[in-house]
Amino acid sequence: MVPFMSETYLIRPIGWVKKESSQVLIEVEKPYLAALLGLEHYSHIWVIYWFHENDNPNDRSILQVHPCRNPGNPLTGVFAARAPVRPNLIGLSAVRLVSLEERRLIVEGLDAREGTPVLDIKPYLPISDAISEARAPELLPHLDEDK
Amino acid sequence: MVPFMSETYLIRPIGWVKKESSQVLIEVEKPYLAALLGLEHYSHIWVIYWFHENDNPNDRSILQVHPCRNPGNPLTGVFAARAPVRPNLIGLSAVRLVSLEERRLIVEGLDAREGTPVLDIKPYLPISDAISEARAPELLPHLDEDK
Repeated sequence: MVPFMSETYLIRPIGWVKKESSQVLIEVEKPYLAALLGLEHYSHIWVIYWFHENDNPNDRSILQVHPCRNPGNPLTGVFAARAPVRPNLIGLSAVRLVSLEERRLIVEGLDAREGTPVLDIKPYLPISDAISEARAPELLPHLDEDK
Repeated sequence: MVPFMSETYLIRPIGWVKKESSQVLIEVEKPYLAALLGLEHYSHIWVIYWFHENDNPNDRSILQVHPCRNPGNPLTGVFAARAPVRPNLIGLSAVRLVSLEERRLIVEGLDAREGTPVLDIKPYLPISDAISEARAPELLPHLDEDK
């Protein structure tokens, strides 16, 4: 049975994106420290975060965008883009885990702003996540987390 | 400035996992149909969903698991596992997009139960998502979305 569409779920930040000099790091909230056990064995991780600056009814109702805010790019559905406007403002980035010290993760490749709420961290599993045969349109590089 | 930890965000399903005979499909809710424009150009997509069966205070407070529920596997933080128990019950799977007809996406490789709420769909971008050099422990195959 499919539940009502009005169903909602609550998410809470488990950490925050910080920038210190030239480094980008994730500081996990103290109560979640134990959840990091074993993460140091991975070279790359998934960071799932919240596009908090767009958390308003208008941005959450946008269903199509011109990628990179370039009117020359074809109108594209937000589910076919990595745009920071979408019904649920979930951002997804695979980043390199440079170091993990207690509850501070220094990462490389995370294009998220200072103060961005982090919702989840998962290990990058090459066996299921690295799909070398995946096919994408030529426009591809411009679609990557366009701001 | 880091906001209060008590900050919460609201998410709503944009579709549901359905199983019909041997096929797994995602049925996107009607109001979001326009958000699918252009997705047909991609061979693979990310499905971000909610482990709704574990949406209770107990499962959301579990911070460490024995992967695959096998006590022989070392205790692992949930942020270092793909387990369906975690503070925010977000599931992440890269799947092959077999076909897209109106608002029904037939997919291959989605290990989620009938009635699972889908929160977001994103295109799989090989340029940023396929990290062939990523390194993971030997245990790896057992950690993949263990149930």
